[in-house]
Amino acid sequence: MRLASYRGNGRTGFARIEDQTAIPLETADIPDLRTALGHGIPTQPSGAAMPLDEIEFLPPIPTADKILCIGLNYRKHAEEAGMALPSRPSIFCRFNGSQVGHGVPVVAPNASPEFDFEGELAVIVGRAGRNITEARAMDHVAGYACFAENSVRDFQKHGTQATAGKNFSASGAFGPWLTTADEIADPHALMLESRLNGEVMQRETTADMIFSIPQLIAYVSTWAELLPGDVIVTGTPSGVGFTRKPPVFMKPGDVFEVQIEGVGTLSNPIIAE
Amino acid sequence: MRLASYRGNGRTGFARIEDQTAIPLETADIPDLRTALGHGIPTQPSGAAMPLDEIEFLPPIPTADKILCIGLNYRKHAEEAGMALPSRPSIFCRFNGSQVGHGVPVVAPNASPEFDFEGELAVIVGRAGRNITEARAMDHVAGYACFAENSVRDFQKHGTQATAGKNFSASGAFGPWLTTADEIADPHALMLESRLNGEVMQRETTADMIFSIPQLIAYVSTWAELLPGDVIVTGTPSGVGFTRKPPVFMKPGDVFEVQIEGVGTLSNPIIAE
Repeated sequence: MRLASYRGNGRTGFARIEDQTAIPLETADIPDLRTALGHGIPTQPSGAAMPLDEIEFLPPIPTADKILCIGLNYRKHAEEAGMALPSRPSIFCRFNGSQVGHGVPVVAPNASPEFDFEGELAVIVGRAGRNITEARAMDHVAGYACFAENSVRDFQKHGTQATAGKNFSASGAFGPWLTTADEIADPHALMLESRLNGEVMQRETTADMIFSIPQLIAYVSTWAELLPGDVIVTGTPSGVGFTRKPPVFMKPGDVFEVQIEGVGTLSNPIIAE
Repeated sequence: MRLASYRGNGRTGFARIEDQTAIPLETADIPDLRTALGHGIPTQPSGAAMPLDEIEFLPPIPTADKILCIGLNYRKHAEEAGMALPSRPSIFCRFNGSQVGHGVPVVAPNASPEFDFEGELAVIVGRAGRNITEARAMDHVAGYACFAENSVRDFQKHGTQATAGKNFSASGAFGPWLTTADEIADPHALMLESRLNGEVMQRETTADMIFSIPQLIAYVSTWAELLPGDVIVTGTPSGVGFTRKPPVFMKPGDVFEVQIEGVGTLSNPIIAE
């Protein structure tokens, strides 16, 4: 099942995606997908199906409690960045305002020319938990989505923490929808491809991850309680722009896409601030 | 004016604190302090005054969109930590679940013996803004609170990012209330004192900050849109536990307090996980 958050037809809510239409599911009691993940996805439509081109996609979870991003989680990306393989995950956060939904313009900051792309697999938590074992971790996964974890490289290096470079308003994207976990046989064997203006920039399977999804869930839940709708963005494969010679950065007029096998394709035009 | 978020008397909401009582202000339209900061603080009570010992304090903003913490923002703390003065702020985040309200037990993690204290001044945003100039920054401040930005030192150093060590569930505290900005003549001339079991551990004025509150607001708003209820936790003065010889860490049975001149005193017992 594919579940999207949307605005359209005078409503804001979430919908099941089927046959190029969005079938709205939100109700007064279950107004958004985050709530639905905690309470159960409604099976009955709450309105008429809408053609996909008549809705605006929001990030699948527009207001997550936590968006936890993993730095340096693909072996070949660690190599290209000249970094040693980490012994434990490095985790930073993105706030909700730093990404848009599928098809919505991503904003290239005025403050920097170093606006880089990062295609990633996002894992969305379905069941709350603390101190989750690796063996039980996948029981807590609701599904997957694509994430453009775009980064402003000079700001990322301003201090010791990556937060500034990872949180420019509307600099990233998340979507197009949540594909439920039952549709993905093995999330560690998915081809992930990112394209800038149609040219393949990153192409790697998720098997190259240093810390697997169960390892990430077990580690994070050592300290934080995971909640329904929390998002773990699992890191980017090799091929990002700043490691290229010469470097490649995004500019207004570009289109950046993240395609993950079985999950979907997230596509966003880049516009000026 | 002092504004607290609370649970008690069968309600959850926010209140004006006066004469050792909490005067509830929440309504159906303005259910919490974050909403009130965006829409205006109600002047009429919405219920009977409650004695302070009959309510449970919540963090002043229980569900902030962003809690932005500044690493290394006091000169003498940079010295004791053996770090060079930063040229730009280092910013990490705390999620809402990582702190409790005034008087509520703070949880010492089982996973680490290195549970350190950090007393800090929190700035709460009242007015949204992006690209805010230093000259206009203080217009965006609703008020101030105390923050126990407690840190699990070994987890803080697991990777390059501080997130893990700063986000153990219920490891920090925030409160007791928001003291509105009109009551604080100069937020850069406040004595901040933290005490562990009554013993003074940190005592410094906020004049020792490396980046002032207007500088922090201007910097953050270069990349993120600040929203009402966002929290900027401005860094800790010298005197933290891990730099002491021998190191001092917190354990169950301790009481940690943060007192800031004109703002209030935040006090929390430490309990085992």
